Amino acid sequence: MAPKARVAKPKIPKGTRDFKPDQMTIKQEAFEKITAVFKRHGAVSIDTPVFELRETLTGKYGEDSKLIYDLADQGGELLSLRYDLTVPFARYVALNGITNIKRYHIAKVYRRDNPAMNRGRFREFNQCDFDIAGVYPSMVPDAEVLKVLTEILDDLDLGQYEVKLNHRGLLDAMLDIAGVPPEKFRPICSAIDKLDKEPWDFVRREMVVDKGLEEGVADAIRPFVELRGQPQALLAKLLDKGHAFAGHAGARAALEELRTLFGYLEGMGALANIVFDLSLARGLDYYTGVIYEAVLKGASVGSVAAGGRFDTLVGMFSGKDVPAVGVSIGIERIYNIMEEQARAQAKEEGCSIRETETEVLVASIGNGYQGRRMGIASRLWARGIKAEFGFKANPKMSDSLGYALKQGIDLLVVFGENELENVRLAVCSLGVFKIKNLVAQTEVTVSSQGLEEEVLKSLAALPKRRAIFTYNSVNKATADVESKLKVNA
Amino acid sequence: MAPKARVAKPKIPKGTRDFKPDQMTIKQEAFEKITAVFKRHGAVSIDTPVFELRETLTGKYGEDSKLIYDLADQGGELLSLRYDLTVPFARYVALNGITNIKRYHIAKVYRRDNPAMNRGRFREFNQCDFDIAGVYPSMVPDAEVLKVLTEILDDLDLGQYEVKLNHRGLLDAMLDIAGVPPEKFRPICSAIDKLDKEPWDFVRREMVVDKGLEEGVADAIRPFVELRGQPQALLAKLLDKGHAFAGHAGARAALEELRTLFGYLEGMGALANIVFDLSLARGLDYYTGVIYEAVLKGASVGSVAAGGRFDTLVGMFSGKDVPAVGVSIGIERIYNIMEEQARAQAKEEGCSIRETETEVLVASIGNGYQGRRMGIASRLWARGIKAEFGFKANPKMSDSLGYALKQGIDLLVVFGENELENVRLAVCSLGVFKIKNLVAQTEVTVSSQGLEEEVLKSLAALPKRRAIFTYNSVNKATADVESKLKVNA
Repeated sequence: MAPKARVAKPKIPKGTRDFKPDQMTIKQEAFEKITAVFKRHGAVSIDTPVFELRETLTGKYGEDSKLIYDLADQGGELLSLRYDLTVPFARYVALNGITNIKRYHIAKVYRRDNPAMNRGRFREFNQCDFDIAGVYPSMVPDAEVLKVLTEILDDLDLGQYEVKLNHRGLLDAMLDIAGVPPEKFRPICSAIDKLDKEPWDFVRREMVVDKGLEEGVADAIRPFVELRGQPQALLAKLLDKGHAFAGHAGARAALEELRTLFGYLEGMGALANIVFDLSLARGLDYYTGVIYEAVLKGASVGSVAAGGRFDTLVGMFSGKDVPAVGVSIGIERIYNIMEEQARAQAKEEGCSIRETETEVLVASIGNGYQGRRMGIASRLWARGIKAEFGFKANPKMSDSLGYALKQGIDLLVVFGENELENVRLAVCSLGVFKIKNLVAQTEVTVSSQGLEEEVLKSLAALPKRRAIFTYNSVNKATADVESKLKVNA
Repeated sequence: MAPKARVAKPKIPKGTRDFKPDQMTIKQEAFEKITAVFKRHGAVSIDTPVFELRETLTGKYGEDSKLIYDLADQGGELLSLRYDLTVPFARYVALNGITNIKRYHIAKVYRRDNPAMNRGRFREFNQCDFDIAGVYPSMVPDAEVLKVLTEILDDLDLGQYEVKLNHRGLLDAMLDIAGVPPEKFRPICSAIDKLDKEPWDFVRREMVVDKGLEEGVADAIRPFVELRGQPQALLAKLLDKGHAFAGHAGARAALEELRTLFGYLEGMGALANIVFDLSLARGLDYYTGVIYEAVLKGASVGSVAAGGRFDTLVGMFSGKDVPAVGVSIGIERIYNIMEEQARAQAKEEGCSIRETETEVLVASIGNGYQGRRMGIASRLWARGIKAEFGFKANPKMSDSLGYALKQGIDLLVVFGENELENVRLAVCSLGVFKIKNLVAQTEVTVSSQGLEEEVLKSLAALPKRRAIFTYNSVNKATADVESKLKVNA
């Protein structure tokens, strides 16, 4: 016997959560929709370990490095849990000498952040990453990454969204033109990054008081970061000979890239939700070109996806750059919204979120049929049919019916004694089965040898419905369904 | 620009590996087959964090506890990476006050073991667990778990296997009858556990020399651990009044459970590969009833799955037992075999393992069609068609054809100039497309407005083939296929 003396209260680590069965149904639906888009675009899949050598992660995340989980030194290598999937991807590309790849990766990442679980901020969470690495014509992979992002947000149907887009080259140019010394580019960018949450005065104070920028220089940044609008319209304005960018080579190069990008996005029908926003800065060190961030309009969850071009990250491992561009989808926030939506819809329609995919419940009338139910279920499993047989030794018919309705199981296969347990649910003698269709509320009688074929036929004839829900009648009284079955029988 | 000065050679942690795209194809196929069995049996899915509080794992794994990865103490809770999925499952059941659940969980676990990667022993590896917890009629869940295990091994088609089965109650009884003092049951069991690799004399020496067992007692164990055979035949022998077990209440109870279990397994057609083997001991502390281990015959990979009943593990967390039984599939070893099989088959058939699921490659003839290819691909994506458009600005037709063959893409959608790049591959003017079917080696011409429908029609008409392989012609010279296409065009 196991020791019982010291029973601690069971606990889960701070900032993490278990996913329960109905939550897994929604999570898997989200993953399937996202994976479908990745596959539609011809992406391959890879997997990397959950931990990396500590030195692999060092110097990639700026101030956020303090959020990395280290493993204890138990002898051997020093290891850390991955902070994102981008740096492991770059390590993978470098280690395997890959020159071009379009890959997706859905996996957990770890941050010792202050958890805010109701807003979707966890210490363990999933990222869905899509990246294209390789030397390709300018902006072609960038355009496909943004197309993938918009397809995913469209397919997930989370409501209105916008993708804010900017270019590191423009950020650098505006700071240069405003007179920011180069060594302050990065801290000033990280102040600008707060403009989506804080007013200009707050950000200006950080620039001047905390980061020692001259007041006049800070004021010169303002007109740039207020630039925001439809991509091609704003681009035309910035390309105008009269604009400050016209005299700046770095700005002109970035604007030319954006012109190409916007053209491709328009051709792919992916420009409608893009907003060209010069206040978008993105904190991470490794971005080198176009950057973007998707936000849901009217939602309080913050950004749901972000990414950009990182042309020098692979080279930090191998000494040989492989240019790359990608996006990370933050599935936890999206998942929270989907769960809310699904629960609201289930409530409205009087059904539940399915936890299993079971198609058939094998039920019996009378006592002593446990083994026989298991044998019948085995015949169905052998034909690929998803079936349960009930763990209760001698279940009542109302138990079986109630369970099937609750779980969204559409068919009951019933057999039993000649002596009827219940007059309304007349079933036949052994060797003969009734297949009860709880959706159509009909039933057919079939001999033992025809069982599997008849079940397959009944399953094929079921109406299509959204897989994650039980059917609508689940909340009706079992007796009600029982009586309808009787009427149609 | 990112710093380039300190370029370390990229490395991956010891005992871990990256999965490359073609390996992911096989891994995902393995997961899909295993998940299909779990779902066929009505299992729900859950997810738990990759790390647990250190105290959750303490005292569950006996000597193997030294293999647990601890996280560094960075302030806050003391955490460890999970060692298996069974203890987190018990913690989940206890924490959430669950009284009954049938769940599967496929996830990574971590062991600081000496890696033997060619034999499938890694420090990070996936387990596929299926467990049934709850108070149910005796041996019914146990039978379903074993049925699931045999279905998985059958469906994976890894060759001949056997499932060795024993009962903790019988192990205890045989040691009791042989005269082993109760405090030595566990160390002696762990010696017995080595009988699958070592001869009796080796194990006897460990019992006597290392573990201080009297020679006569050790010799009395031998006839028990040599008992092995067809379940019902051996059971009948052990139930005989003349057998030593007949006088032992614990043995009789265990044998009665096995009689019930074997009956259910026979009724489910799952007894053929089960071997009743009294030398099977299993090292882990938490088993309380039936135990089992699956091995592939003639393979050098050791056991590929193992499990048993653990009735007191949940109670170690909550103080309230929830009886449970389950099995862990060791996917890494299975995966290695599947990869070997797939590579051999691909070689034999002259094809490759697919890395993507792309159905259509959009190709153009002539220069300057990059954006147009992207637009055409977007139309296909919008209809759920998996399509690529090629990142090369001005690909040659032979590039496109070669890529499609290499990747196993079945259809080419081609458009381009009136001026023909290649007389043999005559295509039509803009606004008109050729759909080249590389499987049937035929092509049809279609106007722009009919494109999506025609592609969908062509895809639906493709012959079924095993999804993980490119088609057979991949290794034929591109020119050969080109000329055939011409012949049929």
